[in-house]
Amino acid sequence: MNLDYIIPNNWSILEEGFEPTHVKASESLFSIGNGAMGQRANFEEKYSGPTFQGSYIAGVYYPDKTRVGWWKNGYPEYFAKVLNAPSWIGINITVNNEQLDLFACKDVKNFHRELNMKEGWLSRSFVATLQNDIEVEVKTKRFLSLDLDEVGAINYNITPLNSDAEITFEPYLDSGITNEDTNWDDKFWDTLKVSHENHQAFIEAKTMKTDFYTCTFMESEVFIDGKSVLIEPDFTSDANLASFKYTYNVKQNETYTIHKFGGYTVDRDHEKNELVSAAKATLDKAKTAGFSKLLDDQKQAWAQIWDMADITIEGDVKAQQGIRFNIFHLNQTYLGTDETLNIGPKGFTGEKYGGSTYWDTEAYCIPFYMATKDQSVARKLLAYRHNHLQKAIENAEKLGFTNGAALYPMVTMNGEECHNEWEITFEEIHRNGAIAFAIFNYYRYTGDFSYIPEMGLEVLIGISRFWHQRVNFSSQKNKYVILGVTGPNEYENNINNNWYTNYIAKWCIDYTLETIEKVKEGYADDYERILGKTKITHEELALWKKVADNMYFPYSEEHNVYLQQDGFLDKELITVADLDKSQRPINQKWSWDRILRSPYIKQADLLQGMYFFEDQFTNEELERHFDFYEPFTVHESSLSPCVHSIQAAKLDRMDQAYTFYLRTSRLDLDDYNHEVHEGLHITSMAGTWMSIVEGFGGMRVKNDTLSFEPKIPAQWEGYSFKVNFRHQIITVSVSQNETQFKLEGDKDLTIYVDGKEVAISPNNMVTV
Amino acid sequence: MNLDYIIPNNWSILEEGFEPTHVKASESLFSIGNGAMGQRANFEEKYSGPTFQGSYIAGVYYPDKTRVGWWKNGYPEYFAKVLNAPSWIGINITVNNEQLDLFACKDVKNFHRELNMKEGWLSRSFVATLQNDIEVEVKTKRFLSLDLDEVGAINYNITPLNSDAEITFEPYLDSGITNEDTNWDDKFWDTLKVSHENHQAFIEAKTMKTDFYTCTFMESEVFIDGKSVLIEPDFTSDANLASFKYTYNVKQNETYTIHKFGGYTVDRDHEKNELVSAAKATLDKAKTAGFSKLLDDQKQAWAQIWDMADITIEGDVKAQQGIRFNIFHLNQTYLGTDETLNIGPKGFTGEKYGGSTYWDTEAYCIPFYMATKDQSVARKLLAYRHNHLQKAIENAEKLGFTNGAALYPMVTMNGEECHNEWEITFEEIHRNGAIAFAIFNYYRYTGDFSYIPEMGLEVLIGISRFWHQRVNFSSQKNKYVILGVTGPNEYENNINNNWYTNYIAKWCIDYTLETIEKVKEGYADDYERILGKTKITHEELALWKKVADNMYFPYSEEHNVYLQQDGFLDKELITVADLDKSQRPINQKWSWDRILRSPYIKQADLLQGMYFFEDQFTNEELERHFDFYEPFTVHESSLSPCVHSIQAAKLDRMDQAYTFYLRTSRLDLDDYNHEVHEGLHITSMAGTWMSIVEGFGGMRVKNDTLSFEPKIPAQWEGYSFKVNFRHQIITVSVSQNETQFKLEGDKDLTIYVDGKEVAISPNNMVTV
Repeated sequence: MNLDYIIPNNWSILEEGFEPTHVKASESLFSIGNGAMGQRANFEEKYSGPTFQGSYIAGVYYPDKTRVGWWKNGYPEYFAKVLNAPSWIGINITVNNEQLDLFACKDVKNFHRELNMKEGWLSRSFVATLQNDIEVEVKTKRFLSLDLDEVGAINYNITPLNSDAEITFEPYLDSGITNEDTNWDDKFWDTLKVSHENHQAFIEAKTMKTDFYTCTFMESEVFIDGKSVLIEPDFTSDANLASFKYTYNVKQNETYTIHKFGGYTVDRDHEKNELVSAAKATLDKAKTAGFSKLLDDQKQAWAQIWDMADITIEGDVKAQQGIRFNIFHLNQTYLGTDETLNIGPKGFTGEKYGGSTYWDTEAYCIPFYMATKDQSVARKLLAYRHNHLQKAIENAEKLGFTNGAALYPMVTMNGEECHNEWEITFEEIHRNGAIAFAIFNYYRYTGDFSYIPEMGLEVLIGISRFWHQRVNFSSQKNKYVILGVTGPNEYENNINNNWYTNYIAKWCIDYTLETIEKVKEGYADDYERILGKTKITHEELALWKKVADNMYFPYSEEHNVYLQQDGFLDKELITVADLDKSQRPINQKWSWDRILRSPYIKQADLLQGMYFFEDQFTNEELERHFDFYEPFTVHESSLSPCVHSIQAAKLDRMDQAYTFYLRTSRLDLDDYNHEVHEGLHITSMAGTWMSIVEGFGGMRVKNDTLSFEPKIPAQWEGYSFKVNFRHQIITVSVSQNETQFKLEGDKDLTIYVDGKEVAISPNNMVTV
Repeated sequence: MNLDYIIPNNWSILEEGFEPTHVKASESLFSIGNGAMGQRANFEEKYSGPTFQGSYIAGVYYPDKTRVGWWKNGYPEYFAKVLNAPSWIGINITVNNEQLDLFACKDVKNFHRELNMKEGWLSRSFVATLQNDIEVEVKTKRFLSLDLDEVGAINYNITPLNSDAEITFEPYLDSGITNEDTNWDDKFWDTLKVSHENHQAFIEAKTMKTDFYTCTFMESEVFIDGKSVLIEPDFTSDANLASFKYTYNVKQNETYTIHKFGGYTVDRDHEKNELVSAAKATLDKAKTAGFSKLLDDQKQAWAQIWDMADITIEGDVKAQQGIRFNIFHLNQTYLGTDETLNIGPKGFTGEKYGGSTYWDTEAYCIPFYMATKDQSVARKLLAYRHNHLQKAIENAEKLGFTNGAALYPMVTMNGEECHNEWEITFEEIHRNGAIAFAIFNYYRYTGDFSYIPEMGLEVLIGISRFWHQRVNFSSQKNKYVILGVTGPNEYENNINNNWYTNYIAKWCIDYTLETIEKVKEGYADDYERILGKTKITHEELALWKKVADNMYFPYSEEHNVYLQQDGFLDKELITVADLDKSQRPINQKWSWDRILRSPYIKQADLLQGMYFFEDQFTNEELERHFDFYEPFTVHESSLSPCVHSIQAAKLDRMDQAYTFYLRTSRLDLDDYNHEVHEGLHITSMAGTWMSIVEGFGGMRVKNDTLSFEPKIPAQWEGYSFKVNFRHQIITVSVSQNETQFKLEGDKDLTIYVDGKEVAISPNNMVTV
C-alpha cells in the first residue's frame, strides 16, 4: 500500500474522508508528543476497526527477554522495549445507548483530520449516522502541553443533528494495555492502585522488572453549548480501569462538550509515593488555566520553537509540508531537557526496533539540534554516551576485548546492548566511529572544547582502544585490516575491509591522539585525571599510531574508486535501473543471501564517509564515487536519501538533489517504504534538515567560521533557514537570484559565501 | 564436565557405581534402538534426580513453529522436531508404601549398568536401602526387539534382603510427555483414547498438526522366584495415563519379577483404526514367545548384524570398544528397511537439531551402509532424496531460483527445510554437492548404474541447474565465482569462493554432463522421459559447461595451497597449538564475530574436498594442504576427526591418524565436546568406520576393483573388517606383519593391494 492521501498544505497535515485502510497510517502520521510523552493519533472514542494503539512515556522501557532462533555467545539476555503506557485519552460515547464507533456507523461523512504543526494540536471532525439512525456531528481537538509537559488536553464536542438524544461521555484510564512489539507476550505493567476523588481518577502502575513507577490521571468537565453543567458522574473501576460516566439528555442541535485533562506523573520527576499528589497539582494547574488558555500557551510555545527551527520554502507546498513535518516531529520527540533521554528511531509513534538510541543520534540528529537549539542540548546528547562509557566497556569485554576498549551498543536504552543479530550486534561496529565523530563535530560547530577534557576524551580513548584491538595485521597485504564487519550498508554482512569502517577507525585513532596532546597541553588537571583512570602509556599510543598509519583501504585501479569492501568487484554489477521493478523493495522480495551477494546498497556507505570527511577528498573524487555507487543504491534505509541529496547538491546536480530531498522529506508522508503504519522514521528527519541546510545551503564550519555555498532547486522560488552559531542567530534566505544573510546577535560575524569572506553586523541584512 | 567413567570392555559399555551427575550422560550412552524406535536409557522406576526422558518413534515428527529473533525472507515457517513419544517403559515400584527412587534412597551400592552390544540388551543391577530401611536388590534387563520391531521387553526383578515387604509393581503408559527441544512449549501430542483389557493397556494418541496416529501399549506378567503368579491388578487411568498395580507380600530373599512388554503400533504400518488390534497381535506374539525366547532371538539377530559389520581390534580395548560402540549405534538407528526414514544426527538418543536428514547421510553414512549391508539399503537412502526432489525445487524457488533448480534442505524430515539461520539455511549450499557425490559413489562402489537413469539423473540435473544459477561471472577475475556461502567449516560465514563449494559445484556439473551422455547412449527410454520432464537443451548444457570450465579457485602462490576462501590469508594465522587452552572450545568461549575472523576451522573443509576427489590430487599436494590447514583446525564438529584420520593415514602419519581415530571413535564415550548428555553423535560414527576401513585399510574402488593399502597403528596387534562388495564378502585382517584376505562368494575376485593385483578365490585365504 503506497499512500498519497495526505493533502498538501504549508502548515498542516490534512486528511479528508474516512477510510478504514488509512487509519493505522494516519495514527502514525498525526502522532503528537511533547518530549516527555507522546501518542499515536488514536481516536478518543471506541474504534473496532484495525488500529494500533500506542501511548508512550519518555525513558520508560521494559527489558524483554531476548528471543532468538539459535543463540550465539555474546547476545544480550534482555532487549529494552519501547513500552506502550497506560492510556488516558479514551472517552467512550453512547448515543441513546448505542456506542459511537466509526467502524460500525451506517455512514460517516465530512471526516476531516488536521495536525496543525504551527500550533501543535490535532483535530478531527465528522458527521456520523449510528445504527440507531441518530446523526451526530463530532469535533475534537487534542494536544500535549509543552509548558506543562505532564499533561494533555482534549476538547470533545458532539451534537445530535436529527433528534434529541441521551448522550454519555465515559472518559476512562486504562492500564490493561499490551505491546504490539513483545517477544513472549509477557505482561509489562503491574497496576498498583486505582483511585478517584471528585472528578479526578488515578491509576498507579509500575513496569515489571524495571520498576518505573507512574501515575496515569484524568479530570473532566462537561458543557452544554459552551456552558458548564454540573453532573455528578458514576464512577466505575476494575483492576486496570477507571471511568466516569457523564450522561445528559441533549436536545437536537445542542452541543455536548467534554474537556478532559490527562497525562502521567513519573518517578523520574517525583518521589514514588507522591505521584498522585503531583498529579493533582498538575491537574489543578491545567484546570485553573482551562482548555483555551492551555491551547494559547501551546501556540506560544510552538511559535518559539518555529521561530528558531522553521525552514520556509516558497513555491513548492509539498516540499514545505515535508520539511515542517520533519522539524515538527523531531521537536515532538526530543527537546533536550533531560540527559537520560535520547531520540528513538520511531519517537513516540510506534514500538518497532526497541531501544531509544542508535548511531542515528550522532550521525544525523546532532547537527540539527546544534543549529536549532542552544548548544547545551547537543552537549546533553554527547554526555549521554559518556554516561554509558562503562557499559560500553563491559559490552566490549563480552566480545573478548580488554583494557578499557569500548564498543557502544547498536541499540540501547540504558547503555546495554539491545540487539541480537550477530551480523549487526557484533559486526556493525562503525557505530563507534559516529560517536567519536560527534565529539569532533560538536567542537567544530560550537567551539566549546570544554566538553572534551571533561568527558569526551575518555570516550575517545575507549573507542580508539577498541579499534586498535579490533584490527589485525595481514602479512599478505602488509597492512592492518578489519575483518568481519557490517558497514552502514547493511545489505552486506561479515565483509572484510569495509572502506567506511576502516576509514573512520583510522580517523578515530588519529583524532584521539591529536586530542590527547591538546588536553595535555591545555588542561593539565583533566589530563592527569584521565591518565590515572585510563592508564594510557606512550607505548600504547605508539601502537595505535602504527595501526592508523598502516590501515588498509581497498581500491580499484580499474575504476579509480575505493571499494566498499574487498569483494565488491566480484559481484554481478547490474545497476538498479536495470533491475526489474517487480523485484523491489528487495528487502521484501528477496531472500537474505540473494541480497547479500547482490551489488545493491541499502544506504550511503562510501558516500557517507565522504560526507563526514569531505575535506579529505576532492570534488572529482566525490563525483567518481557518486557515479560508481549511486547507481547500485536502493535507498531502502530511511537514512540514505538525505546524504545523497547533500552530495548531489555539492556536485551541482540539483535535479537529483531535489528528487532525493523529496524522498527524504516525504518518506513517511508518501510512505515510500510501505511501513508508515508501524510508526514514523524520526531520526532520518534530521537528515532532511541537513539536506536543506548543508545540501542546498551548503553550510559548513571551516576554521571556526560559518561557510555557505547556497544553491536552489529549479522548482523553488526561495527558501530560508536559521542557525544558532555560537550564540548568534543567522537567518539565511535563498532565492533564485541572491542570498540574504541576517544576524541576530551582539557582535559582528564574518562568514564565507562561496569561498569569499562576507561580514555581517547584528540586525543588518547582507545580500550576496 | 569431561567424562571418563565408562569401563573399557571389548563388547560392552559398562558403568560401575551410582553417580547422579552421570545419569544424563549414561542415558545417552546406553540408549537402545531397533531402527523403528529407540529410547534413552531412562530408569524404569521413578527417578527424581536430573534426567532427560526420551523415547522416539522413527519418522514421527512435529512441525514446530519457527522461532527467530529477526525474521529473514525465505525462512521456513515450520521446523520438524524430533518428537518425544509416549513412554511405555515406566514401572513405579513401592516397597512397604515407599516409592523406590535411587535419587532418594539412603544408600545405593553395587550399581552396575551394562549395554551389551553383542547381544543387543541393556541391564542394570543395584542394592538400595530405602528411607524405610528396607534393603532391596534390583536386577533389570531391557531390549527393543529387532525381529518384532514394534515391541520391547523388560525383565525387572526385586528382592527384599533384610525383611519381608509388600511390593507393588505399577507398570504404566504415559502420553503426557513433553519435549526438551521445543520452540514455544507447545503440546505436541493429543491423546485420543486410553483403554485396557485384562493385563493389556493401550493409549491411542496422535501428533498435533502432522496427524501421526500411534498406539502405545503394554502387557505385564509377574513371578515369584521365577514362578508365574496370577494377580488381578488394579487398573487406573487418566487423560494421559494407564497403569496396573500388581501387589504382593514378598518374603525376605524372595524375588518378585515383572515381565513387561510394550511398544508402539503406528499408522505408517497399519490402518489408523486398527492400531489397537495390531498392538494386541504384536503383544500376543511377544507373550507367546516369552521374555527368554525373545531375548534369544535378539542375540541371534545381533549376531547376524555383527557377522557382517563387526570390526575387531586386537591389543587395544579402548579402540575396540569405540568402534563397536559406533557400529552398534548406527545399526540401532537405521537398518535400511524403510525408504521414508533416514539417519538423524542424534538417532534415538536426543532431540537436538531436529530433522532426521543432513548432508551427513550422503557424505559419511552411505559408505558404511554400502559395505556392511545389502546394496539395496544405500539405494533406499539415495531414493529418499529423489523422493524429495520436487520439494528441493520448491525450496530453491523460495530463494529466487527458477527452471527446476534444486536446493536440498540443510535439515529435513519430509523434504522441507527445517533450519533457520541465514548463514546456514541459505548459504551452506555445498550440501547439494554431497548428494550428487553419493550418486557417483554408489555407482562406483556397487556397479549398479540402474539407479541413475531411474532416479539419480533427475536429481543431478536439478542440482547442476542450481549451481549454474548460483554462480556469477566476475569480470575482475574473468572467472565464475560463488559469493556468500558457508563451507563445511561453519566457523566462516558468508565467505566468497569457498574452495570446497566451488570445487564440488564444478564437479557436479561435469559429472551431470557426463552422466547425461551415458544415459542418452545406454538408456534411450529413460533419457526421453527425463528430457520430457526436465526440458534440458543443448544450449543450457553448453552454459553449464562454460561455468564448470571457468570456475575460480582461490590459490596462494606464496604458500602453494588452495585457499579455503578468498579472505583466508588476511586472517591472523596463529595456530591452535599457540592458542591458550583456556579459550577452548572456542564455540563455548568466544563471541561469534571473533570465531568468524579467526583462522580456526571447525571441521575439515579443503581436506574434505581432497578426500572426496583424491584422484585429482597428488600425495604431495595433499601433504601441503594438510600441513597448512590442520594446525588451524579445532575439530569442534564431530565430523572432523574421521576425515583427518583418513588423510593422516594416507600420508603415513600413523600416530596422528591413531589420535584422530580415538577422537572420532570415543567422541561420545569420552565426551570430547562436553555435550553427550544431549544425545550421541550418530552420523559421525560412520566416519569412524571409514577411518578404519578407508584410513587404515586404505580401501578404495578403482576401475570397478577393490583396492587396499593396509596400514596399522603401532598400538594395535591387528584388526579386521568385512565388506560386501558387489554381493561378495571380503574379510580383511591386518596385523603388524601381514594382511589376510578371505572371500565369501561365488566367483574369483581380483583386488589391488598396495597397487598390485591379487587374486582371491571363494572361501580361500590370501596372505600378503
